[in-house]
Amino acid sequence: MNRRMVLFLLGRVMLTEAILMLLPCLVAVVYRESSVVAFFPAIFIALALGVIFSAKRPANHVFYAKEGFITVALSWILISAVGALPFYISGEIPSYTDSLFEMVSGFTTTGASILKNVEALSKCMLFWRSFSHWIGGMGVLVFLLALIPPSGGYSMNLMRAESPGPSVGKLSPKISTTAKTLYGIYFALTVVEIILLCLGDMRIFDALLISFGTAGTGGFAILNTSLESYSAYIQVIVTVFMILFGVNFTVYFYLFYERNIKKALKNEELRWYIIIIIASVALITLNILPMYDSIFEAWHQAAFQVGSIITTTGFSTTDFNLWPEFSRVMLIVLMFFGACAGSTGGGFKISRVVLLVKTMVREFGHIMHPSSVKVVTLDGKKIEHSVARSLTAFFVAYVLVMGLSVLLISGDGFDFTTNVSAVMATLNNIGPGLEVVGPMGNYSGFSVFAKYVLIFDMLAGRLELFPMLMLFVPRAWKKQ
Amino acid sequence: MNRRMVLFLLGRVMLTEAILMLLPCLVAVVYRESSVVAFFPAIFIALALGVIFSAKRPANHVFYAKEGFITVALSWILISAVGALPFYISGEIPSYTDSLFEMVSGFTTTGASILKNVEALSKCMLFWRSFSHWIGGMGVLVFLLALIPPSGGYSMNLMRAESPGPSVGKLSPKISTTAKTLYGIYFALTVVEIILLCLGDMRIFDALLISFGTAGTGGFAILNTSLESYSAYIQVIVTVFMILFGVNFTVYFYLFYERNIKKALKNEELRWYIIIIIASVALITLNILPMYDSIFEAWHQAAFQVGSIITTTGFSTTDFNLWPEFSRVMLIVLMFFGACAGSTGGGFKISRVVLLVKTMVREFGHIMHPSSVKVVTLDGKKIEHSVARSLTAFFVAYVLVMGLSVLLISGDGFDFTTNVSAVMATLNNIGPGLEVVGPMGNYSGFSVFAKYVLIFDMLAGRLELFPMLMLFVPRAWKKQ
Repeated sequence: MNRRMVLFLLGRVMLTEAILMLLPCLVAVVYRESSVVAFFPAIFIALALGVIFSAKRPANHVFYAKEGFITVALSWILISAVGALPFYISGEIPSYTDSLFEMVSGFTTTGASILKNVEALSKCMLFWRSFSHWIGGMGVLVFLLALIPPSGGYSMNLMRAESPGPSVGKLSPKISTTAKTLYGIYFALTVVEIILLCLGDMRIFDALLISFGTAGTGGFAILNTSLESYSAYIQVIVTVFMILFGVNFTVYFYLFYERNIKKALKNEELRWYIIIIIASVALITLNILPMYDSIFEAWHQAAFQVGSIITTTGFSTTDFNLWPEFSRVMLIVLMFFGACAGSTGGGFKISRVVLLVKTMVREFGHIMHPSSVKVVTLDGKKIEHSVARSLTAFFVAYVLVMGLSVLLISGDGFDFTTNVSAVMATLNNIGPGLEVVGPMGNYSGFSVFAKYVLIFDMLAGRLELFPMLMLFVPRAWKKQ
Repeated sequence: MNRRMVLFLLGRVMLTEAILMLLPCLVAVVYRESSVVAFFPAIFIALALGVIFSAKRPANHVFYAKEGFITVALSWILISAVGALPFYISGEIPSYTDSLFEMVSGFTTTGASILKNVEALSKCMLFWRSFSHWIGGMGVLVFLLALIPPSGGYSMNLMRAESPGPSVGKLSPKISTTAKTLYGIYFALTVVEIILLCLGDMRIFDALLISFGTAGTGGFAILNTSLESYSAYIQVIVTVFMILFGVNFTVYFYLFYERNIKKALKNEELRWYIIIIIASVALITLNILPMYDSIFEAWHQAAFQVGSIITTTGFSTTDFNLWPEFSRVMLIVLMFFGACAGSTGGGFKISRVVLLVKTMVREFGHIMHPSSVKVVTLDGKKIEHSVARSLTAFFVAYVLVMGLSVLLISGDGFDFTTNVSAVMATLNNIGPGLEVVGPMGNYSGFSVFAKYVLIFDMLAGRLELFPMLMLFVPRAWKKQ
């Protein structure tokens, strides 16, 4: 492994975080909050680490996929570890494990919280917590690539390791242009949502934070009841934007940059995404109808919760933990599906599900006509053998991590539904699960050990398993 | 599809069942039970269908994998539908759905019961119920192949469709010899268990039925408390034999026929099977220690339940539903693993788990050294690309069937643990699950719809998914 290069990039990430932490300081100045001092040591540590790590430009620019994975995994651990310091130093979250849990939940856009009373946090802390969703949604290293034009050949391996989905769509031959384009779309959509929320009589501070949570498909809210107390208008806007942020960003690229609607709508994953959403909303609406006054109200609730879960955002407007078992299982299935590849959403990704089902169907065809040769395609393009193979590996790793995590946290003695949904909700970066960790509950009841298991799951889920698993392979650390 | 050939084989299966149903009649004569009359209409129907279906020998002997799958699926549905009649006609199980559930549970060696009071059944019904485990364990069509030397080229495609595991081990170039050898080993092991149980002061009738349940890894007991009230000696014998019947029968072939211990122990799946059992027993023993008087007692209980679940038998000597959550999750994980391929046990099969994990590890190696070419091996032999591909398809189909089943039965309103464990316990042919369907509970509370979903799961699990799924493919039914 090219250790110097990895360290250099980690340094750059630290410097970026130091700058980003100036924003919550600004918020503290506006609202005259004294808790701002808690940010100073964190900024100092980030700066110091940044300067030390990236002091010497590495001579050796060799940077393979392996280096990409390790860099991404370590970057995310480091920004979370340092980013958690303000919560802990200010005392607003008394335990460091809890602070780390909250920060990892923020950056990984999970939105799972250990806070029993969110409303007690100061405004600058609330801002930092939600802002981490926005940064984490599109990716920390992608942000870095957009800011600093890369000098070596490492950019693609970094982008690939951090971006969600089975393959990275290059929007431009130059990686830094792709990164800038993605952040451009991301920024524009976020601004539109902020404006629309303000038009609904929301305060600008709230509109900012809710938009960060929607854009990153994170789900940290600023009220204890999530979005339950907001107006129907606000809830509808958030529903629409959650679903929009769950779409592959190349679709927007075709729409806004190339102005090619036909090309944008040809996206096969998008079609399945829409079909699954419509079908799930219809089924859940029928199932919860007796619980609500009108079919419109049931439909409104079903649409919000389906949009929130499938995009892995995790906002809620009602306690779906109280819904009938069929709807609860529907939501657990949607937790697994996740959003589209190349979006800010987490989960297994619709395109992976589609590819796996197609592989199965092809095998069926093969049994019936052993001599026929059929290939698996997506968007009309043949799927390479190497993609199919790594998809199987991903699926196996996913099920293994899930099973092992449920087993490890079951020592705490919570019920099976709590354990399974807690793992699903963290591994897929959703946030709320069922029972104890339901939308009106939180993760504070777990033991320190279980919290670290779930912290691992959040990071593994956001980085799509392999980078985090790579950390446990001794061979990966060997010096070249 | 060669419909005449499929029909002909179905006819043979019916004739076989008619003959097999004479055995419970014999039991009824010995115990002078009048319920024997319920068997007569069933035998008559089986005979009639048998004669009609196989009246005309098909001229066209074309028989592909597709025909094999359809034949096996239809055979199992038919023998269950006809075999359920005695329960229903005698009135000992008043509903036909319940009778069918019980019979499918028997033939598929699941051992899940809708009976609240097993002890109320007459002896001939109890015998037929447990005997179906013995028949289903090694396979109905394998039995047919062992009895009647096949005249066409269909035998391998039948054997492959009915035998569990990713590939069929041919013990002899001739399929009928392989089938005879397998049944020979099966019969001999069963007789040894019957003798050992009788030595423990068990009545011959009980020893027969418990041995049928062990040999087929079925799990139907004859007391409401399963094996709880038997002596420790009996429980130990059953533990040992459950684990023995979960071993790939080729191991016994090498041991007893070829007398080659080295070749027998080279089996990689066997080694993992033993490692998993030892590790699970150790972990569960530690976890349940506070619940029992001595470490020996805890170890005894852990060993029995682990052996029962991993081999998918489903006997129980204690209500493991009351165990701590960690042990319960351990058992759910073991439900998924299942026994060895080529044994009478169900589940996903250890060899499949091993192959999938190896595929994942290889992909990891590939990320680290993209230029290296590594192949996945089992028992030192390279796994063909086609096996790896169909393994992925199987894994996907398995997860899909599981998820869909949980969703479909969740309409009944039972809790998540009950639903998940009911599907796991039927799809993997185990029997008892947790909560409502725990070892001291039963499946009678489910709706008729849910029962048919679980009946499908039991058949799909025993026949390894593809034959049952094939029934839903319209193209498979098309006349050639």
